[in-house]
Amino acid sequence: MNDKAMINAFTRSDFERLPATERALIARRERVLGPAYRLFYERPVEFVRGDGVWLHDRDGNAYLDAYNNVASVGHANPRVAAAMTEQATRLNTHTRYLNEALIDYAERLTGLFPSALSQVMFTCTGSEANDLALRIARARTGGTGVIVTSLAYHGVTTAVAEFSPSLGRNVPLGTHVRTVRPPLSGDASAGARFAADVEAAIADMLRHGIRPAMLLVDTIFSSDGVIADPPGFLIPAAAAIRAAGGLFVADEVQPGFGRTGDAMWGFVRHGVVPDMATLGKPMGNGYPIAAVVGRPDVFAEFGREVRYFNTFGGTPVAIAAANAVLDEIDDRKLMDNARDTGAYLRDGIDGLGHAAIGEVRGAGLFIGVELIDANGRPDAVLTTRVVNAMRDRRVLLSASGPDANVLKIRPPLVFDRANADLLIATLQDVLP
Amino acid sequence: MNDKAMINAFTRSDFERLPATERALIARRERVLGPAYRLFYERPVEFVRGDGVWLHDRDGNAYLDAYNNVASVGHANPRVAAAMTEQATRLNTHTRYLNEALIDYAERLTGLFPSALSQVMFTCTGSEANDLALRIARARTGGTGVIVTSLAYHGVTTAVAEFSPSLGRNVPLGTHVRTVRPPLSGDASAGARFAADVEAAIADMLRHGIRPAMLLVDTIFSSDGVIADPPGFLIPAAAAIRAAGGLFVADEVQPGFGRTGDAMWGFVRHGVVPDMATLGKPMGNGYPIAAVVGRPDVFAEFGREVRYFNTFGGTPVAIAAANAVLDEIDDRKLMDNARDTGAYLRDGIDGLGHAAIGEVRGAGLFIGVELIDANGRPDAVLTTRVVNAMRDRRVLLSASGPDANVLKIRPPLVFDRANADLLIATLQDVLP
Repeated sequence: MNDKAMINAFTRSDFERLPATERALIARRERVLGPAYRLFYERPVEFVRGDGVWLHDRDGNAYLDAYNNVASVGHANPRVAAAMTEQATRLNTHTRYLNEALIDYAERLTGLFPSALSQVMFTCTGSEANDLALRIARARTGGTGVIVTSLAYHGVTTAVAEFSPSLGRNVPLGTHVRTVRPPLSGDASAGARFAADVEAAIADMLRHGIRPAMLLVDTIFSSDGVIADPPGFLIPAAAAIRAAGGLFVADEVQPGFGRTGDAMWGFVRHGVVPDMATLGKPMGNGYPIAAVVGRPDVFAEFGREVRYFNTFGGTPVAIAAANAVLDEIDDRKLMDNARDTGAYLRDGIDGLGHAAIGEVRGAGLFIGVELIDANGRPDAVLTTRVVNAMRDRRVLLSASGPDANVLKIRPPLVFDRANADLLIATLQDVLP
Repeated sequence: MNDKAMINAFTRSDFERLPATERALIARRERVLGPAYRLFYERPVEFVRGDGVWLHDRDGNAYLDAYNNVASVGHANPRVAAAMTEQATRLNTHTRYLNEALIDYAERLTGLFPSALSQVMFTCTGSEANDLALRIARARTGGTGVIVTSLAYHGVTTAVAEFSPSLGRNVPLGTHVRTVRPPLSGDASAGARFAADVEAAIADMLRHGIRPAMLLVDTIFSSDGVIADPPGFLIPAAAAIRAAGGLFVADEVQPGFGRTGDAMWGFVRHGVVPDMATLGKPMGNGYPIAAVVGRPDVFAEFGREVRYFNTFGGTPVAIAAANAVLDEIDDRKLMDNARDTGAYLRDGIDGLGHAAIGEVRGAGLFIGVELIDANGRPDAVLTTRVVNAMRDRRVLLSASGPDANVLKIRPPLVFDRANADLLIATLQDVLP
């Protein structure tokens, strides 16, 4: 409860203000869970039931979820739960036995990618996927160097935490890691500047005797503050890392599976085909499944050298859940909804014309809203106040960005216009 | 299909001997999955249904499962499936919201450990648990050095693969990693020798400027060939690593949750209390949940420095599954069954008095059976033949050990005497 570096973390000073019952529950939690855990909000919340975009607390209050991107096809989605149940009551083994459903799903999933990306490996978490991508990139390139953006978050394994600068200064970057500024939102020369930064990072690596393995970017730049425009800004940087013998890897854990509205994957917006893509969070709507998708020639050297087995990765129940998620995205046209409702929500927030609202940006249902002070400067204090006031009015969202002043809005993809109206009206209410 | 270092792997030469339908399925699999995947057996098998200790193929044949330790309370366990279903249709969020069931389970789980080990952190896989244990040990000790046994397997993240020598020579050990010979089975001086090896490894680390962080051992030494005796052999080594400022960490991913029969955790057999224990495989009977349990003072420094969030770690559905597993272990007295049926099975195999059977060892339902040639030497060729012949007679097991000659038998804990009789009779049949 002591990490002010984490936006929207509950802290010790918040504790004293809570009612006795919540204090007692939190005290139990702190006794039994390791102290690296964090809670959200100045007044943490406990949910007991979910349903679509809604989460319900013990007292029966409904909260509009505009934050959780894992339950992408809706909380407690009946189709996903039924698929899990059917499979769990029948069989759950692993990938060292044959399993046609695994192959079917792998074919379906890779079929959603540009044809070059035709192979997949399954893990349980996005952290494991990015960790595996690193191992594959090392084998393929013979290099070790990793380039990420200034506030990137890619996961929590030992190796991945070394290239997740958003974890804060207490988690040191690896000596083989370089950070670059994310593309500047809306800047026509964002692509050229980003590529120049990547080239400088490569030169610095080489000067230190480090060969580059990969440039890894979250294609919606979530923890950097949500950056989507102008489309195409990744093209020159991808060329730069490849020219240096490294790979361009798209972290699709957050933007993937239709969230950005115009495509299944965030990289499509930028007209670039990555050498690998990593997937996670919404893939099983909360069931732990994640993956690395890539070109066979990229996977080949790793496969020659190494056997890889992930006990729970791509098991029959995981595959059943993931398959039901794709069914839901298809049948309910959730990608279209992300595009349309996302645009409606961005326009509505922008349309408030409020002086504290700076840039409203993003793609589909991944939206960043800058909050600024009277001088047009980032206002982190206001942002924290807004996040907590929204929670008190029962709308869930959070914040990100280098100045902690960007509201992060990324609801389940079943979010509709009425939900957007409620969010907009509540935001208007809580703004000063 | 090219890694002869993996015991019981299907290979390219096996492919040519298969019927056309299986070849077609495997060809599809190889096109779409990364080449680091491996299948079991010269003739891979596909299961479509599970039930207790039984797995059924497409043709309705039943296989006795004497190998899979994940489905520990039985394949397709109805109680676990029902708990998952109930929770999945209600709510699945994460640890940044309050959740009393998470706290209840954390208290129940830590209550099964010696009282000093009173805190827990949840991950999704055993790999993630061992990876997190490394991060915690580094923060606690200020050291980086890791000591493991010669053929240890601890997982597949970048960092954990660096101390998993059983992955083979193509996966290099870290420069901060030292291996020691596992304790010699049944040797009265095993503890002293093991500790002397650990001390030598520490001295070598220090000579290279590396401070020790942890000695990590699988307390049943599964990939080293299954070693359980004499009880107590870990005590001097645990003292040695602590004297050097490092931690003693028990990897309970395989022996944990009652498998060794006389206790919930493998370390109990050896009368030692570790600084941390890592858990995994059977914890959710196939639902991806794993954990690190430890002393608060061991976790403290990591918690001061770092926030840790694992999106799918300890979610409500994971906790529901894990709680049902503990209910099953309790109500069905599966630990007692592991002890009794395990002893019955070991005695039965030993009682065959077959010349090819060397030492029969292990604890509870984790059993190793050495196969030897006429000169009493390890017989890897026979072992492969036996593993595949057992599969052809529809009994599933595998092999391990430095000489690839130890049958590895670790069935679901619901394995009974009739199952043991069938295994023993089939083994007798297939032995030369």
